[in-house]
Amino acid sequence: MTATSSSTGTRGPAAPTDGARVALHPLGIGDVRIGGFWAERQGANASAVRVGLQRLEEAGNLQNLRIAAGRADGEAIGPVFADSDVYKWLEAVAWEYARQPSDELLEMQREVTRIIAAAQADDGYLNSVVQVRHGNRRYTDLPWSHEHYCAGHLIQAAVAQVRCTGDTALLDVAVRLADHLAGTFGEDRRHDVDGHPVIEMALVELYREAADPRHLELARYFVEARGRGLIAAYGKEPTYFSDRVPVREATTVEGHAVRAVYLAAGAADVAAELGDEELLQALRTQFDHMTATKTYVTGGLGARWEGEAFGDPYELPTDRAYAETCAAIGGVQWAWRMLLATGDARYADAIERMLYNGFLAGVSLSGTEYFYVNLLQHRSDAHADGNRSPAHGRRGWFDCACCPPNVMRTLSGLEGYLATHDGSGVQLHQYAPGTITAGGTTLTVETDYPWDGLVRVRVDAAPGPFRLSLRVPAWAEGATIGTRPAPPGYVHIDAAAGDVVELRLPMEVRTTTAHPRVDAVRGCIALERGPLVYAAEQADHDTPVDDVRIDPDAPRSSEHRPDLLGGVTVVTAGGLTLVPYYAWANRGPAPMRVWIPTT
Amino acid sequence: MTATSSSTGTRGPAAPTDGARVALHPLGIGDVRIGGFWAERQGANASAVRVGLQRLEEAGNLQNLRIAAGRADGEAIGPVFADSDVYKWLEAVAWEYARQPSDELLEMQREVTRIIAAAQADDGYLNSVVQVRHGNRRYTDLPWSHEHYCAGHLIQAAVAQVRCTGDTALLDVAVRLADHLAGTFGEDRRHDVDGHPVIEMALVELYREAADPRHLELARYFVEARGRGLIAAYGKEPTYFSDRVPVREATTVEGHAVRAVYLAAGAADVAAELGDEELLQALRTQFDHMTATKTYVTGGLGARWEGEAFGDPYELPTDRAYAETCAAIGGVQWAWRMLLATGDARYADAIERMLYNGFLAGVSLSGTEYFYVNLLQHRSDAHADGNRSPAHGRRGWFDCACCPPNVMRTLSGLEGYLATHDGSGVQLHQYAPGTITAGGTTLTVETDYPWDGLVRVRVDAAPGPFRLSLRVPAWAEGATIGTRPAPPGYVHIDAAAGDVVELRLPMEVRTTTAHPRVDAVRGCIALERGPLVYAAEQADHDTPVDDVRIDPDAPRSSEHRPDLLGGVTVVTAGGLTLVPYYAWANRGPAPMRVWIPTT
Repeated sequence: MTATSSSTGTRGPAAPTDGARVALHPLGIGDVRIGGFWAERQGANASAVRVGLQRLEEAGNLQNLRIAAGRADGEAIGPVFADSDVYKWLEAVAWEYARQPSDELLEMQREVTRIIAAAQADDGYLNSVVQVRHGNRRYTDLPWSHEHYCAGHLIQAAVAQVRCTGDTALLDVAVRLADHLAGTFGEDRRHDVDGHPVIEMALVELYREAADPRHLELARYFVEARGRGLIAAYGKEPTYFSDRVPVREATTVEGHAVRAVYLAAGAADVAAELGDEELLQALRTQFDHMTATKTYVTGGLGARWEGEAFGDPYELPTDRAYAETCAAIGGVQWAWRMLLATGDARYADAIERMLYNGFLAGVSLSGTEYFYVNLLQHRSDAHADGNRSPAHGRRGWFDCACCPPNVMRTLSGLEGYLATHDGSGVQLHQYAPGTITAGGTTLTVETDYPWDGLVRVRVDAAPGPFRLSLRVPAWAEGATIGTRPAPPGYVHIDAAAGDVVELRLPMEVRTTTAHPRVDAVRGCIALERGPLVYAAEQADHDTPVDDVRIDPDAPRSSEHRPDLLGGVTVVTAGGLTLVPYYAWANRGPAPMRVWIPTT
Repeated sequence: MTATSSSTGTRGPAAPTDGARVALHPLGIGDVRIGGFWAERQGANASAVRVGLQRLEEAGNLQNLRIAAGRADGEAIGPVFADSDVYKWLEAVAWEYARQPSDELLEMQREVTRIIAAAQADDGYLNSVVQVRHGNRRYTDLPWSHEHYCAGHLIQAAVAQVRCTGDTALLDVAVRLADHLAGTFGEDRRHDVDGHPVIEMALVELYREAADPRHLELARYFVEARGRGLIAAYGKEPTYFSDRVPVREATTVEGHAVRAVYLAAGAADVAAELGDEELLQALRTQFDHMTATKTYVTGGLGARWEGEAFGDPYELPTDRAYAETCAAIGGVQWAWRMLLATGDARYADAIERMLYNGFLAGVSLSGTEYFYVNLLQHRSDAHADGNRSPAHGRRGWFDCACCPPNVMRTLSGLEGYLATHDGSGVQLHQYAPGTITAGGTTLTVETDYPWDGLVRVRVDAAPGPFRLSLRVPAWAEGATIGTRPAPPGYVHIDAAAGDVVELRLPMEVRTTTAHPRVDAVRGCIALERGPLVYAAEQADHDTPVDDVRIDPDAPRSSEHRPDLLGGVTVVTAGGLTLVPYYAWANRGPAPMRVWIPTT
């Protein structure tokens, strides 16, 4: 089989060109159809996407664009990056439409796109808050104004829209805006970068869609220009803006976590399209250091509230974890690009950990309420201070509402992160029941993952023999394919139509201890089962969770409870009952802890 | 003996009126003369006070006042509270003059006082940054403008100046400013409070000096007006500004730590002068809760960088401790007022812990460099990010330079916090070699405290029999007076001229464990000896301090090392050598930890 293109042609998020130096190519967003666990989350999210339009009206984001378009009067409302929430939501609408076409979604999309197009200035510039509030004085405060950031999210939405609906209305806006940027910024033009990355990823994706090399060049420029002191004395240290060290010289991630991982993801896109091995190698080093020293067991990123930032190595407090939902999303985006570039299973492992834990905890089972901050320990007398404090429980929206529409677009487009193809076959990275189409090859996956470890893959059709690669997660010591041992990494099977492959991942409850330098969880263990991290929540205990202890050698058992929290497998150990971390705070923001002190 | 007044009449910081409802009265600042440990620190500080004037010139603070006075041209430099650094320094000059009179100090004081007086507006208003930078638009942003805060520090300096030198020049300025405030703010006038307390303490002290009841009334008003929603939507939650709960209803401390303890100290002053038992009782409850759940073993206050704030109960991270030097100073001020009001030894215990550890670590052995943030664990790969990051080591000054002159005034006026008198005798709260005069009673104290536990008090003169009270610290289980056991608290001795009393405090190395809810130090111990908390510092170890372990049962020994760190007693235990926490980072900002994981 030669599976070099997807069958539907509906490309998903992050689709390298055929010329890109990547090991793996994503399947089309329509080539993966899933049910089960994630489909349920997507179903809840589908409602949230529809509620989203109302939220954007209530918060004033859409009105800002109407005012900029001359269709309404008034002052701009909300933060300087208000437009970006509209764009992230619009991206969610596009992926959601690909997942489940609906006239209602199409209508929403067209109406909002019309408002955006009308708000765009004649020369392509677009940022409603700057246009309305700041008297159209552009780029006067780029470290804080988020003008490129908003542009990046607009471009991402436009790319999603054209891929999912074929509608080019927003793409036209995006191209004009990108042309305006390319005409304004660069080595020979204005030498400057935005305080908040995302434009880098966006411009590469636009290049992938509209094929204008100036857009790729501008992305390259923005990646290279950072870390050279362009941003200074703007109320935060250069570290905060990922501007202390050039990307290709950095050996770790630091500063504002979302900014750092968005930048890294964009750099990975640039490296792929330009075949820049040195840059890719630097990103590998950074990712490895992040995983080894700056990542929570939940996959959460960002240890500090102060500056929403990565901490020092091994600085991973549980009660004051920041672990912003958006950082987990950016982490998935970066890891996905690294996976495409390298084919290395560790990136798919990282995606799994982030998706099932640090990311998914960011949204309620209902799909419509969100955590901004994802702590790993919630105390009984925690004081809710400030909008984004987890002690409030999840909330429908925030003053700084970056996370909700970011969750929406991630869940709507989730199929884009599950499987790939290369010259010789198909790779399954994440497991969900459903069908996968790659060229003429069709696979059916049957599994009750993450509750059950059996993954059955049936080859329904294939033009000829091909290589089927299944990821065995690093945690799955003792996995088997049929009767053979399947060590962590990818297990490769020579497959043909009619074959049935059974991967069995061990679902025993695992005990996790942290690196001894992680002082915050000394003398504690965490329990994991499959891809899920577990947590003790007050609702399941009579004694205060603040004070629980666990015998690390106590026997464990697990039981599926269809009645509980939308159906979860609970873990029982040493007198404690634990639920998946992602499901916490759906019974009120009660005390909770992932890391449990041992007796 | 009736010792109701001091012999010199030079009152120190916080001197209740004779009509105040207090259990104890401070001795005059000139009635306590000390040598030994603290005198050495004061000697170093004496140099720092002289350097201070230069720092204030370099940083532009004095120039701001000159510009406001019309004696120079230019724009105001630095933060909105720039004037306060000048005032804190000027207060230090006053106490320093009382400690060791010097024409040089007097000259500095008079020159700077002249500039301040010239900057004052005709109606008494004074804030150079507002006058120069903001076109004299007053009180437009009181939550952030620090106008009352600066006024408070001016008043404190003026009170110190008149007490120590008899010079009323600054007091005149202070009274005019206070009159302006009293004419502007209040229940029947503008109903508003400053974002940063300190004016409350200051106004009560001014009342104590100038006897105008309007100043006491204004202090009462500012205390009572807080916590009623006056400060809202100013970029931080009301908690940050100590404005969530009325002072007399609060049961804990919360929000910005320095603001919180300054407010509490001012409230204690108000309670004392008005005999407000309910308010005093609320402050007791708050202090108890702070001590039990929100205080580091070093006496440090404030667990969070975000908002420089107290955390939730038992949230006491070591690596990200904030424990601002100014918070320890405010903690001492509050505890001192509680001690005067109640005579309860626990407040003197708290002062001891804060002074010797959390406060003293804030200044270098040289006396001229400062920590803003006092962490309890410094990692080997900690990244210095931002002006006040401890990874820089101590620094001579800061963009926000509140701590350096605050340290200066505290060390210069330290004699004011050591001993008291009441109707029946004299109370010694902190031990230092020297002489103490209270009325006709003269005591000589001989001790090598904190290195040695023997404190010998000789009654050199006394008009008649009196009660000598010596504090036995809570940590000093097994202390003796002569041959009698002396349990923690105050031991009272019927004394007369010629008596010699010997207090012996046990100086064995003690093992401290934290409350089990302090997750940050689970499985760790701290070592203490006398009033000092100890720390393992990299300079004394070949293996990484990041990774050290200690056998909690290993034998300990201690040895005085006159050559080391200005002369310290080191503690040896389980292969580790520990130095007093206050002395860390005088050999570079190397890895350090107070809490040591056990084997």
